[in-house]
Amino acid sequence: MYTLYFAPGTAAMLTHLTLIECGAPYELKAVDLAAGEQRSEAYLALNPAGTVPTLIVDGASHGETAALAMLLTERHPEAKLAPAIGDAKRADYLQWMFYLADTLQPGFRQWFYADEFVPESAESIAEAGRHRIEASWTRIAEHLDAHGPYMLGETFSVVDLYVVMLMRWARNMPRPATDWPSLAALAAKVKARPSWKTLYEREQLSEWA
Amino acid sequence: MYTLYFAPGTAAMLTHLTLIECGAPYELKAVDLAAGEQRSEAYLALNPAGTVPTLIVDGASHGETAALAMLLTERHPEAKLAPAIGDAKRADYLQWMFYLADTLQPGFRQWFYADEFVPESAESIAEAGRHRIEASWTRIAEHLDAHGPYMLGETFSVVDLYVVMLMRWARNMPRPATDWPSLAALAAKVKARPSWKTLYEREQLSEWA
Repeated sequence: MYTLYFAPGTAAMLTHLTLIECGAPYELKAVDLAAGEQRSEAYLALNPAGTVPTLIVDGASHGETAALAMLLTERHPEAKLAPAIGDAKRADYLQWMFYLADTLQPGFRQWFYADEFVPESAESIAEAGRHRIEASWTRIAEHLDAHGPYMLGETFSVVDLYVVMLMRWARNMPRPATDWPSLAALAAKVKARPSWKTLYEREQLSEWA
Repeated sequence: MYTLYFAPGTAAMLTHLTLIECGAPYELKAVDLAAGEQRSEAYLALNPAGTVPTLIVDGASHGETAALAMLLTERHPEAKLAPAIGDAKRADYLQWMFYLADTLQPGFRQWFYADEFVPESAESIAEAGRHRIEASWTRIAEHLDAHGPYMLGETFSVVDLYVVMLMRWARNMPRPATDWPSLAALAAKVKARPSWKTLYEREQLSEWA
């Protein structure tokens, strides 16, 4: 039994989708970000970064959504959400997981929280974040055009969940990710999975269903 | 046989150190960053992100230093550089690899390349990067104080190589990472390993030996 501390539609969505895809039993605990619960002493004791998600695994708490998704694929190999060690696709898998975490996802931090960088330049910082995000969509779309339809080729994986979660974050941006046809096609496939619908019910989401 | 495209002292250092620690045969190819070789057509064909490192594995090229380090630990399990799948330390390992890649390392991008964000606010952006980096040193030092001396406890791992590579980048910052005693102790251990000396010879480095 896992326990997931989450907030709807945040980076916790990747962990949550992966839990559902694994068919693993879990309990949900909502963290009220608007009320600042992520900075409470009790929450910081679980996750010193003060971010969601936190996942309790065998009694110990862990953060970092991409790491948690990767961990779940390892603990539930029967769900076939990632190439196993030794598989020829393993290098691609690891490369994309880190690319999404260290290049695309920080672009959103810049776009949504530009004023945390330098308040008086928030607008230009957000704009630079937007360019970074759009450059990533172009790179990913080119990859899908050449090697798709999924991020790792013919086979669905946790990388697709990660990409589509990030695509969802861009839904109200000047240029949403669905403007890139191969990305729109990937999103349609992921949204057609039962896990997506289950997640929407459990996180009570409605936008971009 | 691996081929590593690198530039001295860059993020490629983690891949390079991991190759040496694994005892794997490899060939080095220097990429002249000052001359812009990373943006040449030939290099972009290997690595569309135009960054170092690129590692050729079984004839295919891959990027993302943390992903490559992780891949090498999987391909060379006898080097014992990472907890195996199923090991109780596996979640900590994955969490730290992503934390370093998506939180600490982007702080350096902000510090060193602040003018790529918004040129007119470069100074404030660099300063915000510095605060982010220092907050990370504090978090890592607290972790080492409680659970060290290595990042995963009693056992050396690739996470330590990653931390100490990033510490090296901070050597000329207003507050170098060695100001935190448990980080200084970790750096001393890593620098005492034969792999560190071998790397310095092969990359012809001298600073912070």
